[in-house]
Amino acid sequence: MDIIRVATTSKPTAVAGAIAASVRQSNEAQVQAIGPMAVNQAMKAIAVARGYLASDGFTIICVPIFIEVYVNEGKRTAMRFYVEPR
Amino acid sequence: MDIIRVATTSKPTAVAGAIAASVRQSNEAQVQAIGPMAVNQAMKAIAVARGYLASDGFTIICVPIFIEVYVNEGKRTAMRFYVEPR
Repeated sequence: MDIIRVATTSKPTAVAGAIAASVRQSNEAQVQAIGPMAVNQAMKAIAVARGYLASDGFTIICVPIFIEVYVNEGKRTAMRFYVEPR
Repeated sequence: MDIIRVATTSKPTAVAGAIAASVRQSNEAQVQAIGPMAVNQAMKAIAVARGYLASDGFTIICVPIFIEVYVNEGKRTAMRFYVEPR
């Protein structure tokens, strides 16, 4: 399962589609965001995906955790959201 | 149970303390944020609260939804996060 990386410029509906597809296929999705704007886009996407998946009978929840990632030369703190059916 | 309102200037650790207290007392917490920076602070706070509550044996999850709120003269879209033990 691939990690769904969310950027400031990501469209929440497109990310939501990727989350929904991952949950349907793998019963989970992992979403990663670095920085406040990307975290906001990720949460919008998860809220939208919740609507998409509700019609399939899935009620999704998310578990937010901090992780360290290496980007270019430096270490950054990212947020990772584990999305899965309740 | 009161809604925990998170602002751009809210300290994640302080909000996390309020979330943890609410979950211990009521078995749930409701966190509300308006705007990208506040959503980011809210998610940081939930991730920190997850650590606080893990030591009490709670594994918390969150369910993000959009809601309409009335602020001053206008209607705004807020994000509400329902936090509860898994």
